[in-house]
Amino acid sequence: MKMSQLAIRPEKTAPKDAEAISHKLLAQAGFIDQVMAGVFTFLPLGLRVLTKIENIVREEMDKIGTEILMPSLSPKQLWETTGRLDTIDVLMKTGPANKAAEQKHNAEYVLNSTHEELVTPLVMKQNLSYKDLPLAVYQIQTKFRNEPRAKSGILRTREFRMKDLYSFHTDEADLKRYYEVVKESYKNIFDRLGIGGDTYISLASGGDFTKDFSHEFQTKCENGEDTIFLSKENGIAYNKEVAPEDAEGSDNYEEFKACEVGNIFPLNTKFSEAFDYYYTDKDGVKKIVYMGSYGIGTSRLMGVIVEKFNDERGIIWPDAVAPFKVGLISFEATYEKAKDTYESLMKSGIEVLWDDRDISAGAKFADADLIGNPWRLIISEKSLSGGGAELKRRDEEKSEIIALDEIGKRLA
Amino acid sequence: MKMSQLAIRPEKTAPKDAEAISHKLLAQAGFIDQVMAGVFTFLPLGLRVLTKIENIVREEMDKIGTEILMPSLSPKQLWETTGRLDTIDVLMKTGPANKAAEQKHNAEYVLNSTHEELVTPLVMKQNLSYKDLPLAVYQIQTKFRNEPRAKSGILRTREFRMKDLYSFHTDEADLKRYYEVVKESYKNIFDRLGIGGDTYISLASGGDFTKDFSHEFQTKCENGEDTIFLSKENGIAYNKEVAPEDAEGSDNYEEFKACEVGNIFPLNTKFSEAFDYYYTDKDGVKKIVYMGSYGIGTSRLMGVIVEKFNDERGIIWPDAVAPFKVGLISFEATYEKAKDTYESLMKSGIEVLWDDRDISAGAKFADADLIGNPWRLIISEKSLSGGGAELKRRDEEKSEIIALDEIGKRLA
Repeated sequence: MKMSQLAIRPEKTAPKDAEAISHKLLAQAGFIDQVMAGVFTFLPLGLRVLTKIENIVREEMDKIGTEILMPSLSPKQLWETTGRLDTIDVLMKTGPANKAAEQKHNAEYVLNSTHEELVTPLVMKQNLSYKDLPLAVYQIQTKFRNEPRAKSGILRTREFRMKDLYSFHTDEADLKRYYEVVKESYKNIFDRLGIGGDTYISLASGGDFTKDFSHEFQTKCENGEDTIFLSKENGIAYNKEVAPEDAEGSDNYEEFKACEVGNIFPLNTKFSEAFDYYYTDKDGVKKIVYMGSYGIGTSRLMGVIVEKFNDERGIIWPDAVAPFKVGLISFEATYEKAKDTYESLMKSGIEVLWDDRDISAGAKFADADLIGNPWRLIISEKSLSGGGAELKRRDEEKSEIIALDEIGKRLA
Repeated sequence: MKMSQLAIRPEKTAPKDAEAISHKLLAQAGFIDQVMAGVFTFLPLGLRVLTKIENIVREEMDKIGTEILMPSLSPKQLWETTGRLDTIDVLMKTGPANKAAEQKHNAEYVLNSTHEELVTPLVMKQNLSYKDLPLAVYQIQTKFRNEPRAKSGILRTREFRMKDLYSFHTDEADLKRYYEVVKESYKNIFDRLGIGGDTYISLASGGDFTKDFSHEFQTKCENGEDTIFLSKENGIAYNKEVAPEDAEGSDNYEEFKACEVGNIFPLNTKFSEAFDYYYTDKDGVKKIVYMGSYGIGTSRLMGVIVEKFNDERGIIWPDAVAPFKVGLISFEATYEKAKDTYESLMKSGIEVLWDDRDISAGAKFADADLIGNPWRLIISEKSLSGGGAELKRRDEEKSEIIALDEIGKRLA
C-alpha cells in the first residue's frame, strides 16, 4: 500500500486525555481514532493489525471448536431467565432514539455484553444426544459494556472486539479435561502473538459459578489494571482478589501490574440450570449439561502488544501482527527504482507500506519509526551508489545494503 | 469439515412464521437461527457463506477504497449536528439496562444505523489538502435498524451486515466520475456472486441529498419488497416511487418484484455543510467538500442468493459462495476409503463437507440437497465396484464415476 493513498495517516499529536502509552502511540501513528471516551474507529493500519490478531485466534480456535456469529441484540426475557438483566452493572439496553421511532416500533432489546444467554438456548435447541457432546462453538464479535471509566485507549472500552468460546459437556470431568485443552490453545495464541513469555495463568475468583478458581491470562504490563502475586516458590500466580493473605509485601512473592488478555471460566451448571438444559445419557437417564466459557479480548490485545513493544520513537510490532512486513522509503530521485521494487515485492506477496509522499526524509523516518513495521527498506541515492537498498530491522541499529534484485529473496 | 463434528446441523423443521423461501431453507438447512424477529445467529454453514460474500465485496472494494472499521456506538451530538437524531424512524439509542447500571454510568448513545455522522468528522479531522482528494474509505460492519416488520428472514432484519463506502471530492464533477467507478465495481461484485444477470441498476429518489436520482441495484426476486418498471424501449429501470406515470399496466414496461442489494447515493454537500467541512483549493480558495455514499447489504445478499437459487429439494449455491465445494457421502462399509479421500482432498485445499454420520442413506442425500454444495461425491459399495466414486453437480441429474485417485484433479 502507498502512504499517498493510505486514506488516514499518522496524525502525530496524541489525544490530550491519553494516559496509556498504547493509546498515545496508536493514535499518533494513525491506527485508531477516538469517537468518544471508550469508543474507537480502527483506521486502515489498526484494522490490519486487528485482523491479523483475530486470524491467529481463529486458526487456533478452529482446532478446538466451530465458529458461529451470534447477534449483538437479544430479547430481555433471555436475561430475565438467568437473573442477569438486573445484576450486570455494565449492561446496556436499546430503545427508540426519537418520537418517530417510538411510534413506529417501540421495543427494547438488550445490547449483549457476553453471550451465555444466547448460546445456551441455541445449543439446547439442537436436541443433542450424549453422543454429540462435548460440543464447542466460538465467535469473534463486538461486545458492549458501559464501563464508567474508559481512559486507557483500547485497553478498556465501551465497545470492543472479543473472541468468546463456549463448551458443553456430559459431566464435570469432561469439562475439566476440555478446560486444559483451552489452556494449551491460549498458550499457543499468546506465544504466536509474541507475549507468551510475559503472560501468566493466574488464579482468580470463580464468581457465582464455582467454588473453584477460574483462570485469567495476565500479561505483565505497567498500565495494567490488575495486580498479580507470583509465588517464587511454586510459580503459581494469583490475582490480588484471591492472593494468600501474606502475599502483599512478602519476599516469597513477586508483585506486578498486569493486563488481563484472556479468561477461562468453568460455568458448571449455572446456565444449564437457568435454562433447564438436560440431556439423556446412554442409560436413558436425564442429566444436566456442564458448561465452560472462555474469552480473549482481541482489540485489547492490540493495546497490550503496544504497551509491551515500543521505544521512545514509536511502536515495534512483533512480525506476526505488524500491519506490514516492510516499510519502504524512497525519495524524488529514486522514485522509479522504488516503484519497481515495490511492485516486485507486492507480486511476491510481501506486504509493503511504501512512503511515496512528497515530504522530508526526516519526516518519513520519524513516521516509519512511529508506525513500527518490522523491516525498513530505504532506497536513496546513497544506498544505490553503495550497491542497492539499505535494509534494517525496526528494533536493531545495524543495517545492510542489499542488491535490489536480492530484496525479495532476503525478505521472503 | 465432518458433519459429525459440525456443531450445529440441519434442523429440518422450518420456523412457523417463515414466509420467504430463503428464510425457510436457510433455517431448515442449518445456516441461520432466529434469536427473535429480525435478529439471527449465523451458524457454521451460514457464517462460511457470509464470509465468502464479504470477501468478494472486500476484494472489489480494495480496488477503489481503503478499509476501516467504525464503531456501532456514537455520541448523540453527531446526530444532532445533521438533524437526523429526530428524523430517522428506525434509529435506536442505548441506555443502562438496570438500576445498578444506571447508578454506575448513566449515559445514552446512538446505535448507528448508518455512518455518515461518523465518517465525515473522521475524514475532516485529517486536515486534507486538495492534493489528498478524492478519498474513499469503506467498512464491512453490523448495522442496527429497528424495522417494524421483520418477517422475511435475513432479507429485512433489525441487525444486519453491511458494506458501506464513503467518498470525498473536490467538486461535483469528480463525485460523478467516482460514482461511475462504483457502479462498475458493484456490477463486478454482483456478477461474481452469480446474480449479475438478474440485477438492474434502477433509478430511485435522491431523497434530501440531490434533485437528481440516486441508483439502486435491484435483483429480480419474487419476495422482493420493491416494484421495478423496466422500459422495454431503452432498458432504463425505475423504482415504482419514481416511475413514469404511465408505466403501470403499460405494454412498454416490464413490471417485476425485486430486492434491493445495493445503493449508490450522491450525498453532495448535505453532510459537509452540516459539519462545516471545507478544504482549501490550489488557489487558496475555501471550497466545500462533495460526498457520496454507497451500500451493499452482505447478509441480505445471502438471502437473495437463496431466493434465486433453489428447488423443491433445497438450496443450490453458486460456486463462489457455497459453504463447501463438495459434499462427500459415505457409509459404514466405505468409511475408510472415504476417510482417505476426505483427507487427500483437504490436503489439496478443496473444501469438503463429509457426512460421516451414522444415519440412513436417504437422510444423507436429503441433507446434501438441502444444504446445496455445488458438487456431490458418493463413495458407496456400488460406486466402488463401478470403479470409484460417484460425482454429480447439485443442479444436474447426470453423474459420473471417477477413480478415487483422480478426484482431486477432477475437482481442482
